[in-house]
Amino acid sequence: MIKYSVIGKATRNIDGVAKVTGEARYTFDMTLPGMLYGKLLRSPHPHARIISIDTSEAERLPGVKVVITGKDTPGGKYGPWRRFPELMDEEVLATTKIRFIGDAVAAVAATHEDIAKKALELIKVKYELLPAVFNPVEAAKDDAPQIHDGVENNINITRHIEWGDVDKAFKIADYVREDRYELTSQSHVPLEVHDALASFDKSNGRLTVWTSTQSPYYVQLGLADALKMREGDIRVIKPHVGGAFGGKISTYPEQICAALLSMKTGKPVKIVLNREEEFAVTRRRTPMYVATKIGAKKDGTIVAKEVKVISDGGAYTALGSTALYLMGTYSNFPYKIPNYRFDGCRVYTNNNPSSAMRGFGGPQAVYISETQIDRLAHDIGIDPIVIRRKNGMTPHYVVPGQATIESCGLHECIDKVEQKVKKWGKLPKYQGVGMVCYGFMCGGIFNWINTPYAFSGAMVRVNVDGTVDLFIQASDIGQGSNTALAMICAEELGISLMDIRLHVADTGITPVDLGAWGSRQTFMTGNAVKAAAAEIKRKLMDVARIKLGENIVYDLEAKNGRIYLALRPERGYSYYSIVKDAIKYNDGEALIGTGHYTPHGKGMVSPAFTFGAQAVKVEVDIETGRVKLLDIVTAHDCGQVINPPAVRGQVEGATHMAAGYGLTEELISEDGLVLNASLAYYKILRYRDMPHITTLEVHTHEPEGPFGAKEAGEGLTTPTAAAIANAVYHAVGVEINSNPLTAERVFKALKKNRAT
Amino acid sequence: MIKYSVIGKATRNIDGVAKVTGEARYTFDMTLPGMLYGKLLRSPHPHARIISIDTSEAERLPGVKVVITGKDTPGGKYGPWRRFPELMDEEVLATTKIRFIGDAVAAVAATHEDIAKKALELIKVKYELLPAVFNPVEAAKDDAPQIHDGVENNINITRHIEWGDVDKAFKIADYVREDRYELTSQSHVPLEVHDALASFDKSNGRLTVWTSTQSPYYVQLGLADALKMREGDIRVIKPHVGGAFGGKISTYPEQICAALLSMKTGKPVKIVLNREEEFAVTRRRTPMYVATKIGAKKDGTIVAKEVKVISDGGAYTALGSTALYLMGTYSNFPYKIPNYRFDGCRVYTNNNPSSAMRGFGGPQAVYISETQIDRLAHDIGIDPIVIRRKNGMTPHYVVPGQATIESCGLHECIDKVEQKVKKWGKLPKYQGVGMVCYGFMCGGIFNWINTPYAFSGAMVRVNVDGTVDLFIQASDIGQGSNTALAMICAEELGISLMDIRLHVADTGITPVDLGAWGSRQTFMTGNAVKAAAAEIKRKLMDVARIKLGENIVYDLEAKNGRIYLALRPERGYSYYSIVKDAIKYNDGEALIGTGHYTPHGKGMVSPAFTFGAQAVKVEVDIETGRVKLLDIVTAHDCGQVINPPAVRGQVEGATHMAAGYGLTEELISEDGLVLNASLAYYKILRYRDMPHITTLEVHTHEPEGPFGAKEAGEGLTTPTAAAIANAVYHAVGVEINSNPLTAERVFKALKKNRAT
Repeated sequence: MIKYSVIGKATRNIDGVAKVTGEARYTFDMTLPGMLYGKLLRSPHPHARIISIDTSEAERLPGVKVVITGKDTPGGKYGPWRRFPELMDEEVLATTKIRFIGDAVAAVAATHEDIAKKALELIKVKYELLPAVFNPVEAAKDDAPQIHDGVENNINITRHIEWGDVDKAFKIADYVREDRYELTSQSHVPLEVHDALASFDKSNGRLTVWTSTQSPYYVQLGLADALKMREGDIRVIKPHVGGAFGGKISTYPEQICAALLSMKTGKPVKIVLNREEEFAVTRRRTPMYVATKIGAKKDGTIVAKEVKVISDGGAYTALGSTALYLMGTYSNFPYKIPNYRFDGCRVYTNNNPSSAMRGFGGPQAVYISETQIDRLAHDIGIDPIVIRRKNGMTPHYVVPGQATIESCGLHECIDKVEQKVKKWGKLPKYQGVGMVCYGFMCGGIFNWINTPYAFSGAMVRVNVDGTVDLFIQASDIGQGSNTALAMICAEELGISLMDIRLHVADTGITPVDLGAWGSRQTFMTGNAVKAAAAEIKRKLMDVARIKLGENIVYDLEAKNGRIYLALRPERGYSYYSIVKDAIKYNDGEALIGTGHYTPHGKGMVSPAFTFGAQAVKVEVDIETGRVKLLDIVTAHDCGQVINPPAVRGQVEGATHMAAGYGLTEELISEDGLVLNASLAYYKILRYRDMPHITTLEVHTHEPEGPFGAKEAGEGLTTPTAAAIANAVYHAVGVEINSNPLTAERVFKALKKNRAT
Repeated sequence: MIKYSVIGKATRNIDGVAKVTGEARYTFDMTLPGMLYGKLLRSPHPHARIISIDTSEAERLPGVKVVITGKDTPGGKYGPWRRFPELMDEEVLATTKIRFIGDAVAAVAATHEDIAKKALELIKVKYELLPAVFNPVEAAKDDAPQIHDGVENNINITRHIEWGDVDKAFKIADYVREDRYELTSQSHVPLEVHDALASFDKSNGRLTVWTSTQSPYYVQLGLADALKMREGDIRVIKPHVGGAFGGKISTYPEQICAALLSMKTGKPVKIVLNREEEFAVTRRRTPMYVATKIGAKKDGTIVAKEVKVISDGGAYTALGSTALYLMGTYSNFPYKIPNYRFDGCRVYTNNNPSSAMRGFGGPQAVYISETQIDRLAHDIGIDPIVIRRKNGMTPHYVVPGQATIESCGLHECIDKVEQKVKKWGKLPKYQGVGMVCYGFMCGGIFNWINTPYAFSGAMVRVNVDGTVDLFIQASDIGQGSNTALAMICAEELGISLMDIRLHVADTGITPVDLGAWGSRQTFMTGNAVKAAAAEIKRKLMDVARIKLGENIVYDLEAKNGRIYLALRPERGYSYYSIVKDAIKYNDGEALIGTGHYTPHGKGMVSPAFTFGAQAVKVEVDIETGRVKLLDIVTAHDCGQVINPPAVRGQVEGATHMAAGYGLTEELISEDGLVLNASLAYYKILRYRDMPHITTLEVHTHEPEGPFGAKEAGEGLTTPTAAAIANAVYHAVGVEINSNPLTAERVFKALKKNRAT
């Protein structure tokens, strides 16, 4: 293994002290002089036509500065799919039609939050109610109400993936199994709700927006589209973010309305959603109806697989189409399936829109695939681990027409988890262990936003005292990317983390980066940072070589604050002295290096993939159906670990979220109305519900990643629900085809089992 | 003349709306969560030894968070003269000795400003009083009290300039005249007093300071020295600045103490001086005792000049040595004097330190030189304009061993002013016109701060929509440099000012720049900005040339948002489309250009010089001695005008300040105590005291300046006091050898004249 000085060493999160001392400032905390408070009025109906809006009484309320409706917006539609404008289907404020309960119809800015709330009550909206549809299968029928003009059968988008000859392969399979699933919705539940503070400068027509986001750049583009302004006149700044989980990727009405209200009033305007809005009107994980069929030989070799999905898109496209596509991708992971077919269909309904959520199609895919494999193994009579080993991906595998895999530690992950599981020994009655395997991307090769920029960028400035200003637009949303990226910069320059000063996530001063989604920050921005630092390192080495009087054939190294001859480390200079000389050599300019990264030659999904195996031990209370988590063990191949405690933190956080998807979390709605839009009724696992989580290290090196690193962000949210379902299956023998495995669902399954 | 699209056109100051609407934020206005208020305890004695300081009672006062004294500082001395450490003679808080009334001995941070004030009263300092000296001539005597250890005769610094054979030339002169002057002090009187807000982050040992300064970089270095921290761990940000005028060049105790108090308390700390402190303990214009001798031929040709100066340095070096040196430089301006000798001696006294002030030695030099020339003309019997024309500098003149002058519009300035003065016709009794000529530098070739960086830097980033982020550390302190520099950037790229977004005066994100002093921003940073933009323009032209299919021999132009063949302007592309292509060609990175400027091959003073002539018409009330300003006309050769109304604003503002130096402004002190430390008693000219000011345009092109520009910052503060003195001389025949020409001084001179 390569010896590193900075990366791979346990490092305190550089934002950590600010966060635990309460010094960290979130958008929520911010105020500006003269700031107003904004609120949005939302439709109580799932499908309706707006007849009229009367804002006069609200406008007369003392303290109300402005009330805006759809006619006060620049008009047109916006959305993340700038590459396919027909998919840009959102309105800032509904002008004529309501498509879900929560569509905003008016916005108010007032001197106090309570006044703004009161003003909402005074706005009179007349609606003509329309028949609504909430189930995607129903919505796709010919007689269903049409939600968007020109969209036949409410079909938002279809995705097809296929290779090999699936039908022929099924015919020659020794065994074919079919399963159907209904996967439910999950809410992101960030501790910091969606918020935005906008300040418009009338003197130059420029807008600054602070917002809790995963991608300042996407918000900048979304605002530009919705406000019909140019990007360069909009500056988006991401302060500390209190959680995002896929729910803060794009641009949302509260950001655009804060901007509009600021433009109308000339004052800064802040909008903070309440917890009910956070649950009921922001995005959610995509619910899916799945039919999946697998064909295998007697020895467990998988010969064919087919997956058909109808997803409940809700009212708008959002990024739900990508979740659908990735469901198709991950449904063949992490196995070598020679014949594969995926057909996905995303259908508009009058529910709240489903979109990206941590794992992005992965939890759904792993749920259906890994539970089916255990059942298949049972049917054939083989140990499920044997099937997984037999079919598991290996390094250099090419997913036909989809992706090129380079590093792959799947088999080491299986081995390590298996060893650990063996130690658990024979289990008591009603206990069971479920094991699953999974793979995940390291950033998507998706350009839905249609950017001409590189996917990630970085600028490094080295000052005369050797300190480094690192400019990145990568979004640390709690995952620790600021720390990881600073470590990558320090490692490349051979200096200490204390030499790095970060400038982050501000579109005005940092190079464009697509932000935090698809587990891309460490990998993609890491590559950009490494490239930017490498540019400087080359300059420093050129100067050092001159001072050393050596020919260019001799390699230099930069490490531990020194630059020296690789083969004679005693011959060298301190980094600090070389920097001083290099700046003089540079005619007195600080050293600036820029770097960028866009994947090339890696297919259409991701430039690299992580792999992992996880086992969960549960105990089922057969009287009540309650499932208790007893132990979780995970081996995650994230390539070279950058910051070990950060990876452990990601394992634990993701596992908690994934266990919620598997056990308790479900966003329940009836006729489009979310019924459990509160932290009291939406059941997140508590500390006492969580078992000990063991993280096993697996060492691989990804040639495409920075220093060999891959991801540890989202892949870890994909296995746990499936592992729980498998554990319950092995504990009490029930096949449950829906999540979460609440006591009610398990109890019903047990009862049905007993009945049959 | 070259046709420009942006520069030379009347342009609204880009900070103007914010300033006139009150939206502009000054350090004074800023607050941070948990912020404390700091105050400094100052010595009431001019020269004393500190016996003891008891802070215990102050520390017990509720609300007081910390009290610090000299022992709580890192120790050592600091000051702007980092190139000559023996001249770094300031302590943050006096440890053992007081050298002027106002030396700080302790600092307090408390939850409220009033508590901090009260705490100061509770600090008990025991002093041993030492004999003090306030007159530099007395201070230089052998038996004078010694103010700094090891500094014999309190001689702080001596400067000698000489060329030709002065003694021989005086011998062959037809006429020799000697005069002695006593020039008094002037206060900067910024509307925003000195202030600083410091925030220390204990988690990473980094400090951020917002402060009203002319040079964030100098403050960064001064803080690094005084706090024994490295530069890169200190970030200095200049918000809007409410005036500086040379008084905010360096690092001051309030900035360092705010930092120390923040380091001790872990909270942000703001210190704002009060108006009395602003007058009495900040810097001031250098008072000088001058003996000057001039020798001329009968025809008015000057053959020799000698100037001897003793300056009242006050307690510390500050930048007073440069004021002394520039007194020597400007005393031969703007004339070709073949034999010249200057001897200057700066002497420490127990007064408040004299340092830089707008004009930087120039007002003193012009006062003694231009009044003497009028007297010489009278003695010889020649029109003073004839002497000025005969000896006036011309383009390409080399000041021996000092400076190389390229452009010089002096004679055009004289002509234009003369024409205007002629229109005034014959004047009534007791009215008079005084005319003077002057020259001034465009930034100093001085590296007192010992920086390895270029003197100015700029970074330009061009985004895909064509908008430009311009990063400069130049300090707009009200002179309009932000606007001028943005205009230079727009002109070079051939785009609109609305395409430029500025990021300014923040050491964390902008390239090093020495800041606003010596009239250097437009000239030196202008050159850096132009170079940075030119780097981008070359890239754009390369792309445009490929698209046009032309060979490299054909010149392209970038203007009015287009890039086209210079000789066939119809063949071209829009700037915006070329930018899009260029970023794709750049593999998706935004276009980044950097530029810098350090003068070379231009001597030791400045890379270029402005010239001007000014006439002032006055009326003297011979009963009271009161002088009334009737009219002022100025022709200032500032090379290519960048922004015409900004130049007019500079003429008017500088003239007002210079008229104050000539008529009413004097910082009066007795035994080291400033007696008029208030806006009520320090007499600034009011609106109704000012006459109409006419600005006459003179067109020159300076090859070394950006687009031919020179300065319009400080040169204009140099003529007016001398012009007033000459006008009074011509009106009522009195020679007054001191400024300002208060009614009292003029009355006494009139009385003396009548008596003789």
